[in-house]
Amino acid sequence: MSKGITSKNDDYSAWYNELVTKADLAEHSAVKGCMVIKPYGYSIWEKMQAALDKMFKDTGHSNAYFPLFIPKSFFSKEAAHVEGFATECAVVTHYRLKNDGNGNIIVDEDAKLEEELIVRPTSETIIWNTYRGWIQSYRDLPILVNQWANVVRWEMRTRLFLRTTEFLWQEGHTAHSTAAEAIEETERMLNVYADFAENWMAMPVVKGIKTANERFAGAVETYCIEALMQDGKALQAGTSHFLGQNFAKAFDVKFTSKEGKLDHVWATSWGVSTRLMGALIMAHSDDSGLVLPPKLAPIQVVIVPIYKSDEDLAKITEFADNLHAELKAKGISVKYDDRDTQRPGFKFAEYELKGVPVRIAIGGRDMENGTVEIARRDTKEKQTIAQDGLANRIEALLEDIQTNIYQKALKFRSENITEVNSYEEFKQVLDGKAGFVSAHWDGTPETEKKIKEETKATIRCIPLDNKQEEGVCIYSGQASTQRVLFARAY
Amino acid sequence: MSKGITSKNDDYSAWYNELVTKADLAEHSAVKGCMVIKPYGYSIWEKMQAALDKMFKDTGHSNAYFPLFIPKSFFSKEAAHVEGFATECAVVTHYRLKNDGNGNIIVDEDAKLEEELIVRPTSETIIWNTYRGWIQSYRDLPILVNQWANVVRWEMRTRLFLRTTEFLWQEGHTAHSTAAEAIEETERMLNVYADFAENWMAMPVVKGIKTANERFAGAVETYCIEALMQDGKALQAGTSHFLGQNFAKAFDVKFTSKEGKLDHVWATSWGVSTRLMGALIMAHSDDSGLVLPPKLAPIQVVIVPIYKSDEDLAKITEFADNLHAELKAKGISVKYDDRDTQRPGFKFAEYELKGVPVRIAIGGRDMENGTVEIARRDTKEKQTIAQDGLANRIEALLEDIQTNIYQKALKFRSENITEVNSYEEFKQVLDGKAGFVSAHWDGTPETEKKIKEETKATIRCIPLDNKQEEGVCIYSGQASTQRVLFARAY
Repeated sequence: MSKGITSKNDDYSAWYNELVTKADLAEHSAVKGCMVIKPYGYSIWEKMQAALDKMFKDTGHSNAYFPLFIPKSFFSKEAAHVEGFATECAVVTHYRLKNDGNGNIIVDEDAKLEEELIVRPTSETIIWNTYRGWIQSYRDLPILVNQWANVVRWEMRTRLFLRTTEFLWQEGHTAHSTAAEAIEETERMLNVYADFAENWMAMPVVKGIKTANERFAGAVETYCIEALMQDGKALQAGTSHFLGQNFAKAFDVKFTSKEGKLDHVWATSWGVSTRLMGALIMAHSDDSGLVLPPKLAPIQVVIVPIYKSDEDLAKITEFADNLHAELKAKGISVKYDDRDTQRPGFKFAEYELKGVPVRIAIGGRDMENGTVEIARRDTKEKQTIAQDGLANRIEALLEDIQTNIYQKALKFRSENITEVNSYEEFKQVLDGKAGFVSAHWDGTPETEKKIKEETKATIRCIPLDNKQEEGVCIYSGQASTQRVLFARAY
Repeated sequence: MSKGITSKNDDYSAWYNELVTKADLAEHSAVKGCMVIKPYGYSIWEKMQAALDKMFKDTGHSNAYFPLFIPKSFFSKEAAHVEGFATECAVVTHYRLKNDGNGNIIVDEDAKLEEELIVRPTSETIIWNTYRGWIQSYRDLPILVNQWANVVRWEMRTRLFLRTTEFLWQEGHTAHSTAAEAIEETERMLNVYADFAENWMAMPVVKGIKTANERFAGAVETYCIEALMQDGKALQAGTSHFLGQNFAKAFDVKFTSKEGKLDHVWATSWGVSTRLMGALIMAHSDDSGLVLPPKLAPIQVVIVPIYKSDEDLAKITEFADNLHAELKAKGISVKYDDRDTQRPGFKFAEYELKGVPVRIAIGGRDMENGTVEIARRDTKEKQTIAQDGLANRIEALLEDIQTNIYQKALKFRSENITEVNSYEEFKQVLDGKAGFVSAHWDGTPETEKKIKEETKATIRCIPLDNKQEEGVCIYSGQASTQRVLFARAY
């Protein structure tokens, strides 16, 4: 393991970049803007996928797979959609390379596509073009489909996990016979995301609605979950869109209702991406490395033997093997690290960097005393405890860590939602501790835009359970009926 | 459910296409050569993925993710590799569209890439370029990484699952310090594939080595598993490549050995794809629809109530719910189909089409008699049996079906490996029952090529456990020391 990383208080951005790289989560690739997700990083993503996939299936969804490529003409069919994505998409124009005779491999101009293909930035268009063939009657509805896929949005400035040209995600695309049912689905999936963020990622989120400016290109309403990072910036962690009949109209998808009436189908789409990896890292980690909630940690417990003789090691190994078996039976993932090429101190630092929630160290003296040293990653507390009943204690400890990480993040967020009543105050908070700033806004896109230009803060959302209160817009002085949440954001 | 499908004896190709579509496995998309994998088809693929992924992890591999795009220059670095893939790849040349002012969306020529990007047809080049940064010493080896991904190979003539421009697959890419260790890995993964094909897909395979002509572009040796379809054509179901030091040399990946010597790293790669879906369908299915091995069936047991009164239905439902719970506890997936919109006969045909291994029908009389009617999909045998101990009987029956499907396929294959000793005989068999034709070959690419031109048969493999025997090449009359397996293939 290499030396420590920059302190997050000194340079949050450097801290993040170094952590992602040094903890073996991801790295930049030779392809501009595209990342390599390394095995350790990917194993966390796999745990996220498994949990989310189960939640999707438990709410009645099935997975399917649609083409990577979208014909350019499909893009143009939904006006707002193409407006939103045209300026950042990878375009396939040819289907063959050739040798130019001098040993150079060049594009074969004889293999030019009649119609360019876009590498999907999101799949509404290709999916709704497909759904046209699947839907005739109300009996074919609802369609509740999800896709796990890679997507490409050409980004000029990228950051590992947070903003990359290619990223992995899931995109749900559902079709319904009524607006009410589609809205219910939109909200259901928002709740699934919030549940996942809070109960798996241990990351509190605000559920809300985006303003028109921040809406998904083609949506009638965009719901979102917004999280707060430790540097006081917000991060959009997931979105769920009520698409109305926009895509059904663009792709002519109609159904016959029970009453025999022909109508366009109602749609939703919703997605979360590998961006969640960035959120997970930034929400909890510290200067020693990752802090992972136990539910998403690929290794939940590491056992490190500390020994002076082979005899010591043999005894410790026997004990560790039994503990390993006991923990495995409880569904807890354990690593026993008896490498003789590294010292315990090196191993301790490595597992701190990797965010392993519980570390158990066992020495010769421990074996005599019937004890172990147990260290939790979140608080860095160490304790010597009895070997008797250890597996149960560890199980309880993992639950405690999961809760504690969440509570810590919740406390941080509570302390960093600030109500302000003037534009001066607003700017002071933003330039100070930042966080979410709750302020009155006149409801116009113009004001929102100006505030963004002047302060780089955007309206993260109008919280779902928002209190209605009379006030005046901090910028325009116009009347307002509710506060909205502003923040600078990733 | 729509009417029956073409008989496979009348037109095997039409039978396959209709089956794939009507059983809701996949369909053609609006993008030429790309398919949509529908939810039912995808749920079978997910079962395949889960089983394979576990086997990969049990043999020490981790998953990771590498970029979709490969810079054109990387492609040219391994001569045989670029030769093999250049003529069939999708090329990204631009990263933006724009509105031409008349409402048309066109490619923005100001956003032309300096270097074209290839949509990966396979990832050796981008991965070995990455491994250069991961490997310095023997301590960094082996690297045992797998990737689940989509890849694109531009195909002019496509068939659902069997040959599509975009397909889903896994590609393992490992790095080793010795040739022997890399060869061992290549063979280990071939055995994993054979194990999966035989014990999960119930599809017997021949393990063998490809001739130089059929070798993967860039490999030193390509191992394969070859299966026989019911129409007597062969299908390559998986490949495992020993890449020697070819990619390490092309991408300058060296390591320092224990002895302090600098050497290039040894490599393997291995993959299976959604093509296996095609193999699964063609290996077992019949004119009534899919025949799925229970281990890969998304629904293993379907229960259909047959009732005349609500009272009947209530009793049957209570019984079905209990049975459902009992089977679920055994890890068996069950569907209770009490839709009142369809008649039992319709449902029976639907589940036959979908390949559900066991169907249980329960009527009012059954409830009085304490019986059920049980039908197995593979043999279509029906039986009335006691409700007592039903869950255990079903569990045993599913195992029996898994075995029976395999045995049937094995018997078919045994009957369709024909030894021939002359070119006349060779052609007769190919034009007759076809299957694998075991014949002497002089070992030259020229003879292999001529036989292929004249008969469309290729050498599927030189079986791994091949018997050495003296003979003469059926084509050239030259001396030969072993028979090889020819076939016409998918």
